[in-house]
Amino acid sequence: MTSIDPQAKFRTGAVDMTHGGGGRAMAVLIEDLFHRHLKNTILDQGHDAAVLEMPPGRLVMSTDAHVISPLFFPGGDIGSLSVHGTLNDLAMAGARPVSLTASFILEEGFPLADLERIVISMARAAREAGVPVVSGDTKVVEKGKGDGVFITTTGVGVLPEGVSISPAAAKPGQAVLLSGTIGDHGVAILSKRENLTFETEIQSDSAALHGLVGSMVDAVPGISVLRDPTRGGLATALNEIAHASKVGVMLDEGEIPVRPDVEGVCELLGLDPLYVANEGKLICICEASDADRLLEIMKAHPLGQNAAKIGEIVEDTDCMVVMKTGFGGSRVVDWLSGEQLPRIC
Amino acid sequence: MTSIDPQAKFRTGAVDMTHGGGGRAMAVLIEDLFHRHLKNTILDQGHDAAVLEMPPGRLVMSTDAHVISPLFFPGGDIGSLSVHGTLNDLAMAGARPVSLTASFILEEGFPLADLERIVISMARAAREAGVPVVSGDTKVVEKGKGDGVFITTTGVGVLPEGVSISPAAAKPGQAVLLSGTIGDHGVAILSKRENLTFETEIQSDSAALHGLVGSMVDAVPGISVLRDPTRGGLATALNEIAHASKVGVMLDEGEIPVRPDVEGVCELLGLDPLYVANEGKLICICEASDADRLLEIMKAHPLGQNAAKIGEIVEDTDCMVVMKTGFGGSRVVDWLSGEQLPRIC
Repeated sequence: MTSIDPQAKFRTGAVDMTHGGGGRAMAVLIEDLFHRHLKNTILDQGHDAAVLEMPPGRLVMSTDAHVISPLFFPGGDIGSLSVHGTLNDLAMAGARPVSLTASFILEEGFPLADLERIVISMARAAREAGVPVVSGDTKVVEKGKGDGVFITTTGVGVLPEGVSISPAAAKPGQAVLLSGTIGDHGVAILSKRENLTFETEIQSDSAALHGLVGSMVDAVPGISVLRDPTRGGLATALNEIAHASKVGVMLDEGEIPVRPDVEGVCELLGLDPLYVANEGKLICICEASDADRLLEIMKAHPLGQNAAKIGEIVEDTDCMVVMKTGFGGSRVVDWLSGEQLPRIC
Repeated sequence: MTSIDPQAKFRTGAVDMTHGGGGRAMAVLIEDLFHRHLKNTILDQGHDAAVLEMPPGRLVMSTDAHVISPLFFPGGDIGSLSVHGTLNDLAMAGARPVSLTASFILEEGFPLADLERIVISMARAAREAGVPVVSGDTKVVEKGKGDGVFITTTGVGVLPEGVSISPAAAKPGQAVLLSGTIGDHGVAILSKRENLTFETEIQSDSAALHGLVGSMVDAVPGISVLRDPTRGGLATALNEIAHASKVGVMLDEGEIPVRPDVEGVCELLGLDPLYVANEGKLICICEASDADRLLEIMKAHPLGQNAAKIGEIVEDTDCMVVMKTGFGGSRVVDWLSGEQLPRIC
C-alpha cells in the first residue's frame, strides 16, 4: 500500500503492467481514476457486473471497439467518441439508450494524465447523453503490443413499441434524408494526422444522436431505416442498405450538404467526401409522405440544422447507388474498395 | 468485388488494413467468417445493434477485455476464454446469461486461419453455454500497434427474483466455499509461455460457470457472495470481498484444493497458487447452515467435483485474510502487490 497522493501520481506517472495485474495497483487505478470520474449509483455497487432496472420494451444491444489515431482531435477524443459511437448504434435501431460498459486496453508507458483526460471526457459525454457507464474492465499490454489506449464500449437500450427499424426495410418510392454535412469527422482526423492547418480548424462532428432520433421516432414511429454513415462514409452506408433491402438508391449530388472547407481539404488530398467517415450524422429512409415532417423536426434540432432530402429509393435488382451529378449526368457510387482512412474510429 | 473463394482466402491470407476500413473487404470478412460461424437468428438481422426479447427480471451487464498471451493454450484459446470470462462475471452476480457481444481488435498481418480457429472456438463455447453472440465489431490496427487479436466481450443476463449477491454481503460466521482446485489456468498459460513440458499437460480450467451457479441459486437463493478468482487469484478475490464487506476471512490451508502437478510447477517457479489466476472456479460465501447443502450440489456438478469448505468469515475491522497453516500457525494472505503473471486473461 502506498501513501502517495494518487491524484499526484496521475499527473506524472505512466501505465505499468501492475495496473492490469489484478492486485492493489489495479484496484487503486479503478477506484481513483475510473470510479471517481464515471461515478454513478450502479457503477458504485462495485460488482464485476452491473445490476439495473430496465424500462419495458425489447432490449437493444450494440458494441464498438475504438482504435482511433490520434487519440485527441479537434472536436473530441477517444473517450467522447467511444460514448457517441455506441449510443449512435443503439439510436440507429430506434432504441432509447439505458446504459454503457467500457473496457480499456492500455499500453504500458501510456501517460496516466492522458488516460485521466480521456476518462474525464468519456464521463462528460456520458453525462451529457444521460446514459451512465455502469461497468468496466482494464487490461494492460506490454509497450509495443498496443497503441496508447483502445476502448470498447457496449450499450443497451430499449425499443419503444411499434418501432421496427432495419437496414433491410427500404422500399422503392421512399425518401432518403441526411441530417447534415458529410465528411467532417474524417477530415478533422486526417488534418490533425497530417498536421494540416487552415484559417478555421475543421472539427469532428462526433455527437450522440439518440436525442434527435427520439424526436423523429416520436413523430413518425414508422421510419424504415436509420443508419449513421461512419467508416466508409455515406456511400458505403447507402450501398449496405441497398444490398440489405434489395433496392437501388438515386441520389441528387446538389442536395448533399458538404462544408466548403471540408470539400477543399478533400480536393487537396484526393478524397471523395462520400466515402469519408462521419460520427454525428444519420441517414433516414421514410415514406415520401413523411419526409417534410421529419425534415422539419430534424432542422429544429441542433444536430440536424443542415438536414436535407438527398434522394430516393428506386427499384433495382442490381442494388446500385447512383448519383445524379451537376451536369445532368449520373454516376455509380460504388462500395468503398480498399482502405481510405485507417483507424478513423 | 473478388471472385476468389473466400474460404480459400481464410486458409492462407492475413488480416490487412482494408478488413477494418468499412468497405467491401470488411463486409466479406464479417459475412464469411464471423456470421458464418456465430450464426444465430439475432446476429442474422444484420443491424449494427441487436434486438432481443428479454425474460422478466433486473438486467445484469458486464464487460471484459481479453489480451491473453499466448492466444492458444492447453484447455482453450482467446475465443473460448472470452465467452467464459464474461459469462462468469454475469453468473457471479447470480444472473442467467441471455446474450453476448464481441468486439475484435486485429493486428495487420494476423493469419486469417488463426482468426477463423478463434471464431470457431468462440462459437462452440457460446453454443455449449446456450448464449448467442448477437452483435459484434471489427477493427484493424497497423502491424506493431496490437498483438494478433484482442477480444472484448460484453454480456447481459437477468437476475431471478429474490437473488441479491454482492461482494459487500459477507457476514461473520458465514462459510467460505471453493468450487475446485486453484491455479490451473495460470499455470497452464505460464507452462505454455515458458515451454515447460510435463508428463501430463496441465490444462486451463476455463469454463462457463452459469450452469453450476444456476443450480446453487435455485437451491439457496440467499447466497451472499459469489466471485470467480481470476487475475490475482484466490487471495486477491478474498481480500476484495473482505474489504467490500468490512469483515475478515479465516482460511484453512489444508482444505484448499490444489492439483499436485500445479503445486509442483508453482514451487519450481516460485509462485504461490493462492495468487495464480483461475477461469473456471468460484468462491461462494453463504450461511453456515447452507454450506453442506451447497457443497452437495456443487460436488454433483462436473465443474464442482472438488468443491470444499475452505474457511469462514470472521469479525475484523482491519479486513484481513488470514490462513491457518499446516503447522498450527497462521499467516496473513495479503493483496497481490506488483504483477505476478501479466496478460493471463
